[in-house]
Amino acid sequence: MTTLTGKNSIAGSWSAEGSQTFTSIDPRTRRPGDVNFHSATAQEIDRAVTEAAAAFQETRQYPASRLADFLDTAADEIDNLRDDLIATADYETALGSPRLPGELTRTTSQLRAFGGLLREGSYVEAIIDTALPDRQPPRPDLRRMQVPLGPVAVFSASNFPFAFATAGGDTASAFAAGCPVIVKGHPGHPATTEIFAIALNRAVEASGFPAGFFSMVQGDGIDVGQTLVQHPLLEAVGFTGSLRGGRALFDTAAQRPRPIPVYAEMGSINPVVILPGALAARGGALVETLVASATLGAGQFCTNPGLVLMLDSAETRTFIERYTAEMRARQPQIMLNAAIESGLARTVEQTVSSGGVEVLTGGEAIPEGGFCYAHTVMQADSIQFRSNPNLHHEHFGPVTLFVTCASLDDLRLTIGTIEGQLTGTIHGEAEDIDAARPLIDSLRERVGRLLWNGVPTGVEVVYAQQHGGPYPATTAPATTSVGRTAIKRFMRPVAYQNLPAALLPDALQDENPLDILRIVNNTYTRESIKP
Amino acid sequence: MTTLTGKNSIAGSWSAEGSQTFTSIDPRTRRPGDVNFHSATAQEIDRAVTEAAAAFQETRQYPASRLADFLDTAADEIDNLRDDLIATADYETALGSPRLPGELTRTTSQLRAFGGLLREGSYVEAIIDTALPDRQPPRPDLRRMQVPLGPVAVFSASNFPFAFATAGGDTASAFAAGCPVIVKGHPGHPATTEIFAIALNRAVEASGFPAGFFSMVQGDGIDVGQTLVQHPLLEAVGFTGSLRGGRALFDTAAQRPRPIPVYAEMGSINPVVILPGALAARGGALVETLVASATLGAGQFCTNPGLVLMLDSAETRTFIERYTAEMRARQPQIMLNAAIESGLARTVEQTVSSGGVEVLTGGEAIPEGGFCYAHTVMQADSIQFRSNPNLHHEHFGPVTLFVTCASLDDLRLTIGTIEGQLTGTIHGEAEDIDAARPLIDSLRERVGRLLWNGVPTGVEVVYAQQHGGPYPATTAPATTSVGRTAIKRFMRPVAYQNLPAALLPDALQDENPLDILRIVNNTYTRESIKP
Repeated sequence: MTTLTGKNSIAGSWSAEGSQTFTSIDPRTRRPGDVNFHSATAQEIDRAVTEAAAAFQETRQYPASRLADFLDTAADEIDNLRDDLIATADYETALGSPRLPGELTRTTSQLRAFGGLLREGSYVEAIIDTALPDRQPPRPDLRRMQVPLGPVAVFSASNFPFAFATAGGDTASAFAAGCPVIVKGHPGHPATTEIFAIALNRAVEASGFPAGFFSMVQGDGIDVGQTLVQHPLLEAVGFTGSLRGGRALFDTAAQRPRPIPVYAEMGSINPVVILPGALAARGGALVETLVASATLGAGQFCTNPGLVLMLDSAETRTFIERYTAEMRARQPQIMLNAAIESGLARTVEQTVSSGGVEVLTGGEAIPEGGFCYAHTVMQADSIQFRSNPNLHHEHFGPVTLFVTCASLDDLRLTIGTIEGQLTGTIHGEAEDIDAARPLIDSLRERVGRLLWNGVPTGVEVVYAQQHGGPYPATTAPATTSVGRTAIKRFMRPVAYQNLPAALLPDALQDENPLDILRIVNNTYTRESIKP
Repeated sequence: MTTLTGKNSIAGSWSAEGSQTFTSIDPRTRRPGDVNFHSATAQEIDRAVTEAAAAFQETRQYPASRLADFLDTAADEIDNLRDDLIATADYETALGSPRLPGELTRTTSQLRAFGGLLREGSYVEAIIDTALPDRQPPRPDLRRMQVPLGPVAVFSASNFPFAFATAGGDTASAFAAGCPVIVKGHPGHPATTEIFAIALNRAVEASGFPAGFFSMVQGDGIDVGQTLVQHPLLEAVGFTGSLRGGRALFDTAAQRPRPIPVYAEMGSINPVVILPGALAARGGALVETLVASATLGAGQFCTNPGLVLMLDSAETRTFIERYTAEMRARQPQIMLNAAIESGLARTVEQTVSSGGVEVLTGGEAIPEGGFCYAHTVMQADSIQFRSNPNLHHEHFGPVTLFVTCASLDDLRLTIGTIEGQLTGTIHGEAEDIDAARPLIDSLRERVGRLLWNGVPTGVEVVYAQQHGGPYPATTAPATTSVGRTAIKRFMRPVAYQNLPAALLPDALQDENPLDILRIVNNTYTRESIKP
């Protein structure tokens, strides 16, 4: 096993200058671990960002192939610590197997997938309009491409200690862009964070990158994150977590003398609509599928299906009864930490006490043993749902709210009151398609990803993925935190006007030496430019 | 001539419910015009945005070809009022000929250019990853494309009454995306704004678009704009103007319960570096070229070259003397309005009184006649420049600040202290290229557009254009307000998972009926997808 220091990793050096410490908590026993992790001081944070800015002066010049090789090396170094990472994360999160091994594979695949994007090369979006010297006035030569932004802060999620954490999607996509990263580790799994830092430091060193390309700071309060986001040399922020946490960072970044973008993914209630044809054809299977999705990882998924909309009918009432029985029958799982357990208890209590909602099962924490909350099913009608904001809030955990609607029109009207979501799902058969059309139409305005006959949990890491959505799902609906286009968050365009070839980047040279797809005089092409 | 009403145009109806009015001011005489323009009331603004949101429910479904036809019609309707627009804008801005005829041609060309983008169709960035049903677990089919955001507010610029105003680049790109627009007219040219509203209303009606697709509100205070940006149904804001104005809107939008993006282009001092080889080879011609650029439109360009950096030498001193003589010799032009004249007087006075800068000519308003400010040249050395923030501020008008540097290293160090800019320019000959490399490297981090041997004024409307840059040049460095990619500001991606063909948009159908370039299973192609 790796020996842990409890220190911050500042540009490749371990540092523990602060006196404030915290420990891991075993969620199965609520007992603290042995290692004291040091919250980073303002000086350590300043050093991390300053070193990142210095490193950026080099890494922003690296060819894409070198960044791709680095990502492969990082994935290899993580693989080298695989058993250790899985055991440590299991101790800190209780997420167990097969979840953690699968999530670690996903994490290294993500890193390697960006290599494919970088080696292909067209992601720099080269656009060239050649000069028209004979036009009056002469038209200049203009060539535009994406360049990296600079130092990025990444805030780890609690619920994905691998895939949305120290070496997760935000870090991978920032690295791929050529941006140094300062990770703020989640206080729920500091030991896991430290082991990732070891792996990434090794990759930085093995690749001959400047040490400031990666730093990691620990912290269990809001100070470390706030100080980091306020640093004048920081250029962007990636975050996965709660609405409150994400909005606080967004506000801080917007109020800086020089505002910077915050790409915060803050969760969602992920509405699922079940249409009558689907209910009739496969209601029984749907109970199983939906319960499995709603209880996956103790319901601690940002894509957890927290809201199910159905037309009121005898079949729907039977479906809800069977769903409730199935939720009651399944063994509740250990949750990640005390804050999530108590947060869930508080939001459910608020919702229940706001009236108009019936608790069909659950609705309380399970006090003995580890952090745990009963599988919970609530029900309201559409009028209550539309008028009670509490029913629109996320209950982060194994909680499902059924909302019954009087008619398809009522259903469409109800969808129209839903806030921004990561996902929206419709279950239907062929005979439901006409009914689905206006619903999909309305749902599309509210989501980043629209599903047919599926469950929203399970965010496939492919080019076409869109893991994002209108506020409050995220603070940046035009971006994604999963999939190859996630790199776009950490780049910006620069146009070069009339630059001599000696001063142009490879991507913009006449000969197209990188063999990338470009837009030349309004046409997509890989051809070189003839003089 | 068009008869003006002084009213707001709310979803195709003229409305003047408010009692607060203002008039045009003739900048040549400082005399008010005859028409009283009514500042929009909160109720009128609410109606405009509410109607825009209703219109969006239709227009977001329109095929790109229909939006392209609309843009052509809008350009035609503007052309029909061409003489009227030019005469009215000249009365309100004193920008004269050939500037105004040229700017109007640019404006209608911009509208039509987006038609090319829409009809080609690939701008929706379709990405498709087909299902892998045999994988464990099965991989779903995922298809992603860009969709329009919704109602957009556009704030007109004072200094481009056509190209960055009612039917300017922001409006054209939002319309192209399928987004309804509510224009907040600039109080400096309300009559011009009203004539554009007439043309756009005609285009909306002739095209059979819902009337709420376009509204125009007038206002001479900050209330109208603030109320507009706070409207819950608004989705994005385009703005061209001052740092103070843009930042105020950015702050308002960031503080909304649901924040929305503000694409504010706020100006720049556009550093120009003249290297020794260029100075020796063509110093004389450069004086003429630079003075022409610095005084174009009375220096009221966001790309005005306000800062010239040179190595200290006898040749440089001669250059500055000749530049100063040329600036003194040229007749100052009428400025746009009282606020710009007094704002320039105030910023120059602040800079001069902060010390360390020498005024070589000008430095004061010209009180008789119209709004006017003397052509002004100031000089400081690099140490003074680096330590005095006033020297980094924009002096919006015909003002040039020369900064002399002791060496190339000093020059590079000095560039490293410059804030975000729209443009940066280097003048050099072949022998300057090695010296230029590190300067370009540093300048690239600070600008949206990098020029070699040119002047920054004249923002070519081509695909490759990048009119933007790091803060404080803009609030959104990853976007442009000129060129075809400006459309990206008003779209966001949606992914469709396992949707039946009957419910998929055309852009994502297997057959690729729009014949657009797509990324299918990681490969760029126009091929259809074989089952």
